Amino acid sequence: MARSSQIRRIGDGNVLVVNQIVKEKVGILIGGGMAAEPLFLGYVGKNMADCAVIGNINAAPSPTLILEGTRAINQSKGVIYIFNNYTGDILCFDMAEELAEEEGIQTRSVRVWDDAGSAPIEEITNRRGITGAILVIKVAGGASNLVDNLEELYRITEEARDNTRSLIVVSRSGHYLENGEKMFDLPDGQIEIGVGLHGDPGFMKCEMMPVDEVVDIMMEKLLGELQCKRRDEIAILINSMGATSITELFLVNRRINQIASIKGIRIHNTDIGYFYTSQDMVGFSISALKLNGERKTFFDQPSNSFSYKRD
Amino acid sequence: MARSSQIRRIGDGNVLVVNQIVKEKVGILIGGGMAAEPLFLGYVGKNMADCAVIGNINAAPSPTLILEGTRAINQSKGVIYIFNNYTGDILCFDMAEELAEEEGIQTRSVRVWDDAGSAPIEEITNRRGITGAILVIKVAGGASNLVDNLEELYRITEEARDNTRSLIVVSRSGHYLENGEKMFDLPDGQIEIGVGLHGDPGFMKCEMMPVDEVVDIMMEKLLGELQCKRRDEIAILINSMGATSITELFLVNRRINQIASIKGIRIHNTDIGYFYTSQDMVGFSISALKLNGERKTFFDQPSNSFSYKRD
Repeated sequence: MARSSQIRRIGDGNVLVVNQIVKEKVGILIGGGMAAEPLFLGYVGKNMADCAVIGNINAAPSPTLILEGTRAINQSKGVIYIFNNYTGDILCFDMAEELAEEEGIQTRSVRVWDDAGSAPIEEITNRRGITGAILVIKVAGGASNLVDNLEELYRITEEARDNTRSLIVVSRSGHYLENGEKMFDLPDGQIEIGVGLHGDPGFMKCEMMPVDEVVDIMMEKLLGELQCKRRDEIAILINSMGATSITELFLVNRRINQIASIKGIRIHNTDIGYFYTSQDMVGFSISALKLNGERKTFFDQPSNSFSYKRD
Repeated sequence: MARSSQIRRIGDGNVLVVNQIVKEKVGILIGGGMAAEPLFLGYVGKNMADCAVIGNINAAPSPTLILEGTRAINQSKGVIYIFNNYTGDILCFDMAEELAEEEGIQTRSVRVWDDAGSAPIEEITNRRGITGAILVIKVAGGASNLVDNLEELYRITEEARDNTRSLIVVSRSGHYLENGEKMFDLPDGQIEIGVGLHGDPGFMKCEMMPVDEVVDIMMEKLLGELQCKRRDEIAILINSMGATSITELFLVNRRINQIASIKGIRIHNTDIGYFYTSQDMVGFSISALKLNGERKTFFDQPSNSFSYKRD
């Protein structure tokens, strides 16, 4: 309703599609469960996704819904699925792929596993997907209007995923939409780094400490895993998990800039806001995308979606 | 730091100025205290304000800081000040006006008093300014690149203010940035409609009720005061006070659309997000701007600021 000039809902489920699809392009379809808003529905639009398919609260969208979205945006060039790496989503998107294949629609799936707090790097394909999905969608969406080939776009999207890392830190649990109860227990004055949206375990539980020290720990891991070195360029996304204020996120950004300056790493773009939230959760996430010439071009395409706009 | 390609800080205080000022235009300067972020610093940019001057936490910016910003953006055409109607801000902006006048810089002040919950309409000039300021800035900023005359822009800005109304509803107090304490007391399960950012009294304190009923009460007052009738056009801004989720704001928007549909009022544009927040406050605000042909043209100019972007 808030963006009816740009996107529309098709059918009875939560399938959102852009009103105007540029002809003869590979489609970008994103999706996942509800209750991490504005992920995914906020990222449908120009140079972002062409379609978002949303399930029920914390439940993957059904294969038939995904198929419905796939049909709506396919233009004989095929469709790329981008979703976060959760068991339910993998299952549903895999089944949708098979259904689409049966109808002669080519698809490729990119599972986002950016959460560096959820498993060791050796088990990266077991990691959760979190806020990094937005940066991956931004690259893929930009590329989809410039690259006219499913396999090539699949490679670009996978490489964007492989060069993206994120971490969440939380000092208060979010609440279930259904009953208002806390999702997990975190004693007052404690924080957990590397935690997931629903309190999925992280890698460090400790007493609250100054935000600069928290950011140091997070950036050390993010930049380390991305093997960032002097003169490398990155895009940063700083996200409130729900109840943390923009004012506080600016402090996070200040520290990130100090770290980047010391390490000689260039911050090409900084997004700060509410991109992926859990009801009333206190905390924030940092995502970093390592750029190269190709990814930068795609990332810099002007985009216009409900929750991500850039000139 | 997050937008250094677009805005820069001048001097030692919090004076933010756009990097590129279109020559020979009337300047738009906005400002107020800290801790309602992203108001005001998020609204500096193309077709928005040219400068934001921010004071300390909950304190107006000093007249000398305002003067510094005024000098930076004045181009012999004068400067319009837009700020929310609080005693400290009035005092400081009034003094800045005098200082600017002494230097031969013409200024006009528009105090925003959109909060329909803060005083009866007969005492409108005693009302607080809240989220409606963003809609007023959007109109004034758009107009400032099309209208080349201080008095004319002053009239347009005042009329935008006079056609804007807002209301906040809260179910949990925000917390002071300085000490983490609650700003005011609101028992669990209670809500207050018409309340201010710091718990300033509203017009209705009651048991929690379904959001549709809350929105009905708010819209009745907003549309009533704006004397909206069939075929009138309005712009709507739905704002999280901090910890209320986008998902919940979508429910507010659904009800507003139902009401508008019943009354035959056209919603020209809807903004939903975090535009004006108090630390960790649970609640939301609705602002409505009644449009006419002129205001619609100015409102629809593409804008690009940290917290308000539109193609």
